[in-house]
Amino acid sequence: MTVPVDLGAALSRFSDPWQPRTIAVLNDYDVRVAKTLGEFTWHSHPDTDELFLVVKGSLTIRMEAGDVTLGPGQLYVVPRGVRHQPVSSEGAEIVLIEPSVTVNTGDSPGALTAERRVL
Amino acid sequence: MTVPVDLGAALSRFSDPWQPRTIAVLNDYDVRVAKTLGEFTWHSHPDTDELFLVVKGSLTIRMEAGDVTLGPGQLYVVPRGVRHQPVSSEGAEIVLIEPSVTVNTGDSPGALTAERRVL
Repeated sequence: MTVPVDLGAALSRFSDPWQPRTIAVLNDYDVRVAKTLGEFTWHSHPDTDELFLVVKGSLTIRMEAGDVTLGPGQLYVVPRGVRHQPVSSEGAEIVLIEPSVTVNTGDSPGALTAERRVL
Repeated sequence: MTVPVDLGAALSRFSDPWQPRTIAVLNDYDVRVAKTLGEFTWHSHPDTDELFLVVKGSLTIRMEAGDVTLGPGQLYVVPRGVRHQPVSSEGAEIVLIEPSVTVNTGDSPGALTAERRVL
């Protein structure tokens, strides 16, 4: 029997916010889970769109043209090149889907930049 | 204010099983939702992996090397070229992620083959 990937189980295995873990690979894309809390870095990804799906909690993606707030079961694709700042005052558990080469802080590396990590 | 894509709301807009609707685009990939009920066609996708995520209900993906059964919040990536048959005796609501050019029945076109449809 093949075992599925369980989002809740994967998210229960770590607690540090803004540090995505890769839980599955789809061609040259990663499916990542992350916890979010507080404010992330303003950044963009010049070469790719980025998908955010909220599993639990609430995540706001600030963008210059307007914010979007996601609750459980809601997703948003930030277009390539669009500057955005994920923020989550009460915390959230999310899925990210993006090319495996994508770095979380995009064009704005800093203290929150994470290495690609497979859970 | 930008509006998120709500999986439950999207899934409430149609009822026909095995007819995916595209609800978001990520580069050259589609995010699709579908309802499943009964047995789909055995097929494979020679050129791409395919991601299944269950939102509601239960979906079994039959494969020659072993089946995998997904419940809510569980996902599985069927590797390219692997023959599979999705089955769902009690029905499920799912998310599919795959290249936008991917056809649901892959290398086995037939009565269940669906055109790409944007919800």
